[in-house]
Amino acid sequence: MRVLGIDPGLTRCGVGVVEGSVGRPLTLIDVNVIRTSASEHIAQRLVTIERGLDAWLDEFQPDAVAVERVFARSDSSTIMGTAQASGIALVVAARRGLPVALHTPSEVKAAVSGSGRADKAQVGAMVTRILRLDAPPKPADAADALALAITHIWRGGAQARIDAALAAAGRRP
Amino acid sequence: MRVLGIDPGLTRCGVGVVEGSVGRPLTLIDVNVIRTSASEHIAQRLVTIERGLDAWLDEFQPDAVAVERVFARSDSSTIMGTAQASGIALVVAARRGLPVALHTPSEVKAAVSGSGRADKAQVGAMVTRILRLDAPPKPADAADALALAITHIWRGGAQARIDAALAAAGRRP
Repeated sequence: MRVLGIDPGLTRCGVGVVEGSVGRPLTLIDVNVIRTSASEHIAQRLVTIERGLDAWLDEFQPDAVAVERVFARSDSSTIMGTAQASGIALVVAARRGLPVALHTPSEVKAAVSGSGRADKAQVGAMVTRILRLDAPPKPADAADALALAITHIWRGGAQARIDAALAAAGRRP
Repeated sequence: MRVLGIDPGLTRCGVGVVEGSVGRPLTLIDVNVIRTSASEHIAQRLVTIERGLDAWLDEFQPDAVAVERVFARSDSSTIMGTAQASGIALVVAARRGLPVALHTPSEVKAAVSGSGRADKAQVGAMVTRILRLDAPPKPADAADALALAITHIWRGGAQARIDAALAAAGRRP
């Protein structure tokens, strides 16, 4: 399966596409950040993010989209813009009928590093190893987007196995 | 001028259209709330809001859109959903090239009631009087959307006069 991970942000919105399945090597398809300028009106910045995400969906045709879940307790100076950008990410995916999942930062850290408290450097190092890259993707938002996509494939795989077991037992998932 | 006011919210998103200009009676064109169900996925709820707002813009063709500015210090249990809904409101307007303005709750209260600390009942009563309605619009989100549109027309009018005065004085606004 091919997953677009989105680390929402107003100044830098990380986007990364990973392909693969549980138990097999994962492949980096592409990674980048969509940037908007603080000198622009907030509405225009969100339109830039919307257009950027639409372009990624058009180009890479993912099977699913994974977005970082934003919490109110995060850094309050940027949290509103981050929440607004996350809303755009959710809408852009959902209006195409794509499955959208939210993963918390702790879930992502735990999935890629084994610890929910891993720091950015550890996440970057694990993403580099999992995708067999030469160096950690920069900036951190790009690495985070890839970590989200990896998490989604691995968690999705687990969920798919649970659903299959339930179906085999005669229960609807 | 015709203004669409949007009071963003995930469960109830207030929408109200007001027409008029500074110094003349304002007219209510329409008011309602776009509702989404908490049982739906957040991404689908945002798509419902996007479609609802697009339908209002299609039907009423406003000259400008006024959206309530959301602050991180607001009620934290719903603030993320409100911020995400506000992001959708900004994008839906801006991608049509419509002017979008953000007004704070204090600015709206001050504009319609003369006090930045007016309560919901006072705002509802002033909206009723300003638009010569028989009763306050219900629910409060609907009245708030109208108050935003009224604020925008009155503030926009003041700004237009300042710009005109600056232009007459040979200075670019």
